[in-house]
Amino acid sequence: MNPTPLLDTIDLPQDVRRLQKNQLPQLANELRAYLLESVSKTGGHFASNLGAVELTVALHYVYQTPQDHLIWDVGHQSYPHKILTGRKTRMTTMRQCGGLAGFPKRSESEYDVFGVGHSSTSIGAALGMAVADKLQHKTNRNVAIIGDGAMTAGQAFEALNNAGDMDIDLLVILNDNEMSISPNVGALPKYLAKNPLHDVKGLVKSIKHKSEKVLGLVPGALDVAQRVENKIKDLIEESTSTDTLSLFDNFGFTYSGPIDGHDVIQLVDVLQDMRNRKGPQLLHIITKKGHGYKLAENDPVSFHAVSAFDPQQGLHSSVTVSKPTYTQIFGQWILDQAAVDPNLLAITPAMREGSGLVEFARQYPERYFDVGIAEQHAVTFAAGLACEQMKPVVAIYSTFLQRAYDQLIHDVALQNLPVLFAIDRGGIVGADGPTHAGVYDLSYLRCVPNLVIAVPSDERECRLLLSSCYQLNQPAAVRYPRGIGTGVDAGADLATVPIGKGMLRRQGDKIALIAFGSMVQTALIVANAIDAAVADMRFVKPLDTELLLQLAAEYDYLVTLEENSQIGGAGSAVLEVLAQHKQNKPVLTLGIPDVVTGHGDTIQVLDQIGLSAGKIRQQILQWIG
Amino acid sequence: MNPTPLLDTIDLPQDVRRLQKNQLPQLANELRAYLLESVSKTGGHFASNLGAVELTVALHYVYQTPQDHLIWDVGHQSYPHKILTGRKTRMTTMRQCGGLAGFPKRSESEYDVFGVGHSSTSIGAALGMAVADKLQHKTNRNVAIIGDGAMTAGQAFEALNNAGDMDIDLLVILNDNEMSISPNVGALPKYLAKNPLHDVKGLVKSIKHKSEKVLGLVPGALDVAQRVENKIKDLIEESTSTDTLSLFDNFGFTYSGPIDGHDVIQLVDVLQDMRNRKGPQLLHIITKKGHGYKLAENDPVSFHAVSAFDPQQGLHSSVTVSKPTYTQIFGQWILDQAAVDPNLLAITPAMREGSGLVEFARQYPERYFDVGIAEQHAVTFAAGLACEQMKPVVAIYSTFLQRAYDQLIHDVALQNLPVLFAIDRGGIVGADGPTHAGVYDLSYLRCVPNLVIAVPSDERECRLLLSSCYQLNQPAAVRYPRGIGTGVDAGADLATVPIGKGMLRRQGDKIALIAFGSMVQTALIVANAIDAAVADMRFVKPLDTELLLQLAAEYDYLVTLEENSQIGGAGSAVLEVLAQHKQNKPVLTLGIPDVVTGHGDTIQVLDQIGLSAGKIRQQILQWIG
Repeated sequence: MNPTPLLDTIDLPQDVRRLQKNQLPQLANELRAYLLESVSKTGGHFASNLGAVELTVALHYVYQTPQDHLIWDVGHQSYPHKILTGRKTRMTTMRQCGGLAGFPKRSESEYDVFGVGHSSTSIGAALGMAVADKLQHKTNRNVAIIGDGAMTAGQAFEALNNAGDMDIDLLVILNDNEMSISPNVGALPKYLAKNPLHDVKGLVKSIKHKSEKVLGLVPGALDVAQRVENKIKDLIEESTSTDTLSLFDNFGFTYSGPIDGHDVIQLVDVLQDMRNRKGPQLLHIITKKGHGYKLAENDPVSFHAVSAFDPQQGLHSSVTVSKPTYTQIFGQWILDQAAVDPNLLAITPAMREGSGLVEFARQYPERYFDVGIAEQHAVTFAAGLACEQMKPVVAIYSTFLQRAYDQLIHDVALQNLPVLFAIDRGGIVGADGPTHAGVYDLSYLRCVPNLVIAVPSDERECRLLLSSCYQLNQPAAVRYPRGIGTGVDAGADLATVPIGKGMLRRQGDKIALIAFGSMVQTALIVANAIDAAVADMRFVKPLDTELLLQLAAEYDYLVTLEENSQIGGAGSAVLEVLAQHKQNKPVLTLGIPDVVTGHGDTIQVLDQIGLSAGKIRQQILQWIG
Repeated sequence: MNPTPLLDTIDLPQDVRRLQKNQLPQLANELRAYLLESVSKTGGHFASNLGAVELTVALHYVYQTPQDHLIWDVGHQSYPHKILTGRKTRMTTMRQCGGLAGFPKRSESEYDVFGVGHSSTSIGAALGMAVADKLQHKTNRNVAIIGDGAMTAGQAFEALNNAGDMDIDLLVILNDNEMSISPNVGALPKYLAKNPLHDVKGLVKSIKHKSEKVLGLVPGALDVAQRVENKIKDLIEESTSTDTLSLFDNFGFTYSGPIDGHDVIQLVDVLQDMRNRKGPQLLHIITKKGHGYKLAENDPVSFHAVSAFDPQQGLHSSVTVSKPTYTQIFGQWILDQAAVDPNLLAITPAMREGSGLVEFARQYPERYFDVGIAEQHAVTFAAGLACEQMKPVVAIYSTFLQRAYDQLIHDVALQNLPVLFAIDRGGIVGADGPTHAGVYDLSYLRCVPNLVIAVPSDERECRLLLSSCYQLNQPAAVRYPRGIGTGVDAGADLATVPIGKGMLRRQGDKIALIAFGSMVQTALIVANAIDAAVADMRFVKPLDTELLLQLAAEYDYLVTLEENSQIGGAGSAVLEVLAQHKQNKPVLTLGIPDVVTGHGDTIQVLDQIGLSAGKIRQQILQWIG
């Protein structure tokens, strides 16, 4: 039996718009089945997508996409949108090299009007489009769809403050599922949770029911239909405006809701009304992360992003015990360090699971701070803590630290406060692709005064460098990659190493590989093939000048290796030191090239950009000539 | 006649606290007189300070500083605080080399508990301190003082969202003067303006009056005094709680106010109550920027920051016509470019005056967007505009672009959208000091893919490079320094130059100076003394490889010169290109050293860090040996 007969007839949104409204629940069900089928095979973001099925169907039914713009926040919920916008059969390629991106991407489809990956940009981007459209006298509409988690980020409020004061037609849909990746924190989510669900459906149904009877009997039915339509609009307006919910009204938006985001018929009715409204509108809908798939509903945190799984069985809870990830190494280290230092506090901007802080949060609830999706605040908050003799550790992804760059400089570094940044996902991140790539941090951190930057090359090094940097009475960053390490035992001690000193890992002939972090392992493989020396520099800043000059003296060719932009990163640090010491040696600086990298398996991506052992060897031999 | 007899007795806050409450109005008046006297001599931030006089007196009277912490947002209003905290006689050194900083600075005084300069950090920092204090069982209090302008920045909301959900004693004072540097924009300021002023004073006065009579007559006066005190507290609570103002309550704060921020007696009464309250509190006070000095009240924008002036005459409106500033060159260029391109839109994060957009805002109100103190939103909004065929120009200070670094990467560069960043205040900024120094931008921008970076060396170049980068169909940044240029006529045309090509400005012997932006002029001076070649590279990215290799071939020594961190900046770009082409030439890279720079006259600061013509010449000769 074909489980998706209706969906099979849909290629583009215009096919959705050809359906009868009463067919939409079936389409939503089939879309959900298709989603389960495809994501269970490819892996990817899942629970958020399940929660956005009805909304996506209703939006494409009511709005004339792509002329009307749907701007998805973060993009964790964009798979149903991709399925309905010509990319159904390519769902099997999701997040793979050359396949569909896991997020909306302008270059992928005209329906993806704004590329995304980070949160809280949708309102500002939609406002920009709405203003541009208005200036060009276009009549299309702009809709931002943002989660309640993303709404806690300051950028969303900046956009509300700006839009609410403009004479602009803009719809913001607040998709409230009471979750970021973990459950939401902060005052705003509590505020949102206070509001009772409005049953527009009941009202609409009753009036529709009456009107249908009437329409069959009376002449001049068109006129009646119009009046019925108007009546429905009034009812929607009445039933969705509430004076208990004034926060968004304070920002100049007309608030409606909350309504059930899984009732596709009701969503269509309400959106049809919304599409014609003037001024900044905010529609609050309530959805359930994982909706329609019991296993995900019951455990939306685990089902936020998944590897391939059996739809009947759910996630494999006990796969073969693999090597620990760097995230786990950090998670264990911070437990052990916290046990001996009561002043250690941990801060995460809504990344408890991703940053390895689940156990810390359990053991030290009073020393654990999830500040919401609020990187800027996370860092300034840490600076405040450090002013009062605490030792804050900010656990953050490299790509998200970009959000707190000014705070790192202005609040932490200029004041020389002892905040430790545990930077996860440094380098290529694989399936999440370019929006999440942590490939700029060594470049943007190096120029910051007072900051120590360490780059561990394996699990043991990660622990050693965390302990070493934590002891410092100044700002420091330890930057480690996504995923598993090399299998080296991390140890259980809190031993430290000297700051700014590297290690010669291998002697060689003529060529010295000067490697940083994750590239040390690759360097050792390359070195075996070409008999090169290998230095694990351990620190990007301060750089081990002595070791560097020794290598420059003893070897004919120097090659730097890093999983960071070739521009301004660790390789440039090496060039700077050599120049300062008038060491005019040939240096090949290998790193991430100056392009927007692709998504897919990390090993494949690294090979594409020339950072696999094989490609590195080739480049070195070619360079030596 | 001594105009400040009471202030003369005050050195530290404990001296303020020894006064009778009824002496405080006189102290405030004297403090204002002292402020006018000192700032009119030294220049500095002025109107905000005049508006904060009574608040500062009341805070130090009620709170046990420095054990209690006053966290000033931005710091434009911290001069009265400095005068009352042991720095009165040093006010003559304000913003000069070696003198007082224009902002609170931890290294300057134990009363400056958090260093600042950028806006909207105070709530997060105060929350960090409050949490740390609570964990250590300290009983001191933490007070953040934030303006309504600073409150529009997302970071402030992130902190509210976090604090409002915590069991923490924290007072946020919203100092509402309806201004940033220019009048505020956005929905929030409109919302704040809706609320009627509460007259706590009238109520307190009436009950006090009655009680004083009673206290004279009745035995057991202490008991009565206590009851009177309680009654006053009740009255304050009643008169300052209002259900019309729910926004901050929605964020978990208890809102009080608004009250008159220039009534020092009332402020003391209210703050005494506030100091004992539990949980997150927000007190809304209304002040007038420039209060008490008519000329500043009438023109708070001009009096926001001033040079030395005659207190009787006010600001010199027509000083000798000096060279135009780069800001003015930009301001004229954008008018001329806008005249020929209706798609040009200008965006500023609350810096209309500082960015040279006053005339543009007047001539093109529908194409001008002041988004509030909201750098993140400014950039994402621009990205949205660019998606819809507009040509947005984001006018922003280098130091504030740090706030939008992620948006520049994630929303603009990765999507290769044609947004032009007009980056003002690149390099050393003088009196504002290290928090405002634009000395990291070349380093943090170079690694961003798709971005063109241009650095004009004079006024004509500035105009040429703006026109050239504006024509591009990709992201670009033109970075120019604070203050006046060289006196070169900027021209009135919209001529363009080739992207990524530099110019040889002078031939020389042995040494080639490879100069960027503002350092080209210095390089020409140095070159005359040592007969060196000078190249004006015009672009940091793409770098003119051909010109560089030519110089490397023709000269023995290369020296790079830039007003940016020596780490990862334009000098490193030169090293990278030379390394790629196996040109092993001695290169001296001169730029801002890796330290927190000081404040004061720009020429002095540049000399201190080795970037005056004299110091550069010395360094070059020493290096050549």
